[in-house]
Amino acid sequence: MCTCITYLNNDFYFGRNLDLDCSFGETVTITPRNFPLVFRQAGQQDHHYAMIGMASACDSFPLYAEAVNEKGLAMAGLNFPGSASYKKAVGEGLELASFEIIAWILGKCASVAEAEEYLGEMKITDTAFSDRMPPAPLHWMLADREKCLVIEAVEEGLKAYENPFGVLTNNPPFEYHRMNMNNYMNLTAENPQNRLSDKLDLKPYAQGMGAIGLPGDASSTSRFVRAAFLKWNSVAPEEEKASVSQFFHILDSVAMVRGAVVTEQGTYDITTYSCCVNTRTGVYYYKTYDDSRVRAVDMHETDLEGSALIKK
Amino acid sequence: MCTCITYLNNDFYFGRNLDLDCSFGETVTITPRNFPLVFRQAGQQDHHYAMIGMASACDSFPLYAEAVNEKGLAMAGLNFPGSASYKKAVGEGLELASFEIIAWILGKCASVAEAEEYLGEMKITDTAFSDRMPPAPLHWMLADREKCLVIEAVEEGLKAYENPFGVLTNNPPFEYHRMNMNNYMNLTAENPQNRLSDKLDLKPYAQGMGAIGLPGDASSTSRFVRAAFLKWNSVAPEEEKASVSQFFHILDSVAMVRGAVVTEQGTYDITTYSCCVNTRTGVYYYKTYDDSRVRAVDMHETDLEGSALIKK
Amino acid sequence: MCTCITYLNNDFYFGRNLDLDCSFGETVTITPRNFPLVFRQAGQQDHHYAMIGMASACDSFPLYAEAVNEKGLAMAGLNFPGSASYKKAVGEGLELASFEIIAWILGKCASVAEAEEYLGEMKITDTAFSDRMPPAPLHWMLADREKCLVIEAVEEGLKAYENPFGVLTNNPPFEYHRMNMNNYMNLTAENPQNRLSDKLDLKPYAQGMGAIGLPGDASSTSRFVRAAFLKWNSVAPEEEKASVSQFFHILDSVAMVRGAVVTEQGTYDITTYSCCVNTRTGVYYYKTYDDSRVRAVDMHETDLEGSALIKK
Amino acid sequence: MCTCITYLNNDFYFGRNLDLDCSFGETVTITPRNFPLVFRQAGQQDHHYAMIGMASACDSFPLYAEAVNEKGLAMAGLNFPGSASYKKAVGEGLELASFEIIAWILGKCASVAEAEEYLGEMKITDTAFSDRMPPAPLHWMLADREKCLVIEAVEEGLKAYENPFGVLTNNPPFEYHRMNMNNYMNLTAENPQNRLSDKLDLKPYAQGMGAIGLPGDASSTSRFVRAAFLKWNSVAPEEEKASVSQFFHILDSVAMVRGAVVTEQGTYDITTYSCCVNTRTGVYYYKTYDDSRVRAVDMHETDLEGSALIKK
Repeated sequence: MCTCITYLNNDFYFGRNLDLDCSFGETVTITPRNFPLVFRQAGQQDHHYAMIGMASACDSFPLYAEAVNEKGLAMAGLNFPGSASYKKAVGEGLELASFEIIAWILGKCASVAEAEEYLGEMKITDTAFSDRMPPAPLHWMLADREKCLVIEAVEEGLKAYENPFGVLTNNPPFEYHRMNMNNYMNLTAENPQNRLSDKLDLKPYAQGMGAIGLPGDASSTSRFVRAAFLKWNSVAPEEEKASVSQFFHILDSVAMVRGAVVTEQGTYDITTYSCCVNTRTGVYYYKTYDDSRVRAVDMHETDLEGSALIKK
Repeated sequence: MCTCITYLNNDFYFGRNLDLDCSFGETVTITPRNFPLVFRQAGQQDHHYAMIGMASACDSFPLYAEAVNEKGLAMAGLNFPGSASYKKAVGEGLELASFEIIAWILGKCASVAEAEEYLGEMKITDTAFSDRMPPAPLHWMLADREKCLVIEAVEEGLKAYENPFGVLTNNPPFEYHRMNMNNYMNLTAENPQNRLSDKLDLKPYAQGMGAIGLPGDASSTSRFVRAAFLKWNSVAPEEEKASVSQFFHILDSVAMVRGAVVTEQGTYDITTYSCCVNTRTGVYYYKTYDDSRVRAVDMHETDLEGSALIKK
Repeated sequence: MCTCITYLNNDFYFGRNLDLDCSFGETVTITPRNFPLVFRQAGQQDHHYAMIGMASACDSFPLYAEAVNEKGLAMAGLNFPGSASYKKAVGEGLELASFEIIAWILGKCASVAEAEEYLGEMKITDTAFSDRMPPAPLHWMLADREKCLVIEAVEEGLKAYENPFGVLTNNPPFEYHRMNMNNYMNLTAENPQNRLSDKLDLKPYAQGMGAIGLPGDASSTSRFVRAAFLKWNSVAPEEEKASVSQFFHILDSVAMVRGAVVTEQGTYDITTYSCCVNTRTGVYYYKTYDDSRVRAVDMHETDLEGSALIKK
Repeated sequence: MCTCITYLNNDFYFGRNLDLDCSFGETVTITPRNFPLVFRQAGQQDHHYAMIGMASACDSFPLYAEAVNEKGLAMAGLNFPGSASYKKAVGEGLELASFEIIAWILGKCASVAEAEEYLGEMKITDTAFSDRMPPAPLHWMLADREKCLVIEAVEEGLKAYENPFGVLTNNPPFEYHRMNMNNYMNLTAENPQNRLSDKLDLKPYAQGMGAIGLPGDASSTSRFVRAAFLKWNSVAPEEEKASVSQFFHILDSVAMVRGAVVTEQGTYDITTYSCCVNTRTGVYYYKTYDDSRVRAVDMHETDLEGSALIKK
């Protein structure tokens, strides 16, 4: 379970919380332009845009949880169990395994607009990366400064939705969240007016009462609403440090605290890491559950003309 | 568990839902002016204001759940377990048993203002009406057209609060409800504006969305808020039939449906009856759980100079 | 805006609240077996099942808001603005105007199962009944004792969903409500246990606290949840009077009180009438906003072999 | 507006968010044992327990927002506008200015039990620290490993409440929060069971759905509930690093994000700093809105026998 957001504050930022009951061996990974991206059904990209993001430790393919390319196009995969429906590969059209889609799109496309040209023909297959790594049920958020999409491979096929919120969490499918947001339109960051009755002397006894009704639990529906409320009311100086700090404050507000979310298996979901990328500069900021200090990895401090994955 | 409300719509109406898991043998009962009201510690009222209300079947004393007197003063007792604290009678000052207070006040006082003069010295005793009828833990709403009070006998003594809502339910004590109402000041009966963010295109998909956040369960806290919201946004033609109809619609919205409220003992609380009194004309309207037809008993069709309780 | 429910309590009951800001000239109307039902594109049913329901005053066609036929099949139309999408009639296949679908299905089908055979080929057209009666945007609930469907004519075509709740309100489309109900699975009619922490001494201070979180406003989403909660926790003696009473108590809990729902135009939505039909006996019970007395019209007291609409 | 919590996880931790629309010039400040604490009406403590906490920059008196002494007794002041009622000093009994109470109690008492002996005679005065620093309306949380109190100076005098939650925020008075917590007893960190009806197939579509209903806004009432839920369901390895990390995760979940809480004056309340003290070791951890890295100041690395305030 995860929360992904974008944030425009002079520069355009993209990032997410990754919420799981265990680490997946993630490392900040840079894919330079000449690392050969070999796809199962979709051929090979020998030369492509460089990208940076968090990926599973693996030398042969960058298994990104989320990444941003050098053109400022960003994409993240988020858990979508029970709703994601992948197809068998049949060797026709543009078939991408679920673990390939981020690398394929970010390798090839400089913008959401460019990516959209491929979505019509794209099919997500259930091909496993390996025997020990069955395909994870995911949906994706794809964004650049101009546009944000949600991409969902469901029973009926691949669907792409324009995402005016710049927020994605998990189930239910995006259309539910889009509708659900309307339920909260009356909430305000402002000090509330008495709208119940002008014949009653009601008044706020505390700050923040205009947003009473905002959900505070860790379910995906509630995290979506809370993240959207915080993001769209967010105010920060338009400079890098303040923007990144603000971004993490929003993510902190929808993070999972150990013990507060017990899975059916009795394990604890926590926010294993949170990240924020400046999509213009390619600096990847992140912190982990046990270390709140923000670290930064600048993609451009690496030789982007290289041909091997770089772990940081 | 119960809900009591007042409603001003040209005339002034007072009534309540009585919510219990069983009937208490209630009958509409008129106490004429010369029925001798004999109190345990507080002497006797041989001549007093006539009153009408719902009372337990009993010939020697009108055990009112709620009543209105011929001057338009109205009072109801509502369940207050765990919070009501009655004292032992010691034979000093104005000591009234919990079952006597309605008859005593309505017999003697023409208005809330008059009643207030006695509240300072009043003490509620734990005297039982009979061995089989131990004192019920109650608090009371007392109202006329000008003013509304809540009266609570708690650990520290008798407290009287001005009640700007004209609504009472059960626990917690009234001060909690008064504070709690402020949490709902942002709710509106109007079509909601988008206050969340002017950069998002949120809009209502249905009527009534300005009040999202209004609680819908049957707990006393939620019934208080819902009744207050409905009452203070209520609109009805200023005529008897429409006002009474409107009054019952408000009560219906906070009524208990059989099965939806299971007590610790496994019984079902239901709204055994709902009533509404026109405090000017002394007409008592009521309906029961199993008969939604509204019946009316006009106190002035009885000889109010009588000396025996009249059951209708 | 409306709420439609079914209720199984020995017999099977079907009914609804009709919530509008004005009356539509409705009358209880019986369509006997030989009243010729003439459809715009779908031919004519000269002989058909008899049915009873509330319809607009009109002699040439029974414009039902909801109806039940003599076989126990019941259907209601509910407001669905912005989501309903009717097609132009083109003279192919089974084309029914939105105002015809209730009469057509109830005239021809003895059960939901029978009706389902036609749904695949059915198309809802935007044909108006008359110049002064443009098509209302609706979706429908169709039910018999065995099965309940929601039928929605949307952009992509006619969709039929199995409805396990036996409840329908208005927007959003049914799939949203189905998903949304899962958010309330933790609510209980029982006295709540302390699940928050066994190290804290939390306890209920009132009855009904297990359902805190149940929404209380009049929006369609909230009415759906509240009606479903009340219906599925409902307990009533399995006899006609008690069942009908119980049915109306559930409807009362989701009814609109005048003033509490102000439309964009500044008018007030109210529950103009509530009805409940025993689908086995064909008795139609109803009450109106201004008269809470339940009236009953027994379809079988009419000559069902007649050929003219009968208004009651 | 602020949130204060305790957390027992092998060691006993105490800390808080300080939520304001501006900094108050705060510095981590150690008061060594021989710094003379001069009180306006309550004499002088020449030798006393050493303490560490966040205080306004001031050399003559440690104006603590919160502090912990070397015995492990901790105390914090939180905003309480409209409810705090300070008295005029009259030169009788134990009179402490609101800005003095933390230093006085932590200077003199080794435990909550010891402090309780003084509370009966204590009076909080409205004496200002200086012309430019009028008294802030506050209430306090006082805690050691054994016991936690809330201290409120209200109209009726000084009140001390046992606080089973180990959480404090702002208005309303503590009794409200204590009662209000019962409303959330049905919420669970566990995967929810279907309690609504065993005849409906409801199931969770996401993690965390057992806590749906937990409030997510920044009002003091909602922060209280959220902090209590997170704290009492918290799970962390019983070691320093993990405990401190966990503590800050809880605080992050109730922190104020810039823009999401607009005051009546149009300013933004934010969590200017968050802190956590290990009450056994006297290490004060903190981070600020703009720097999420946790810093640590160890009181015992200072000469506690000194006689001047030490700023870190």
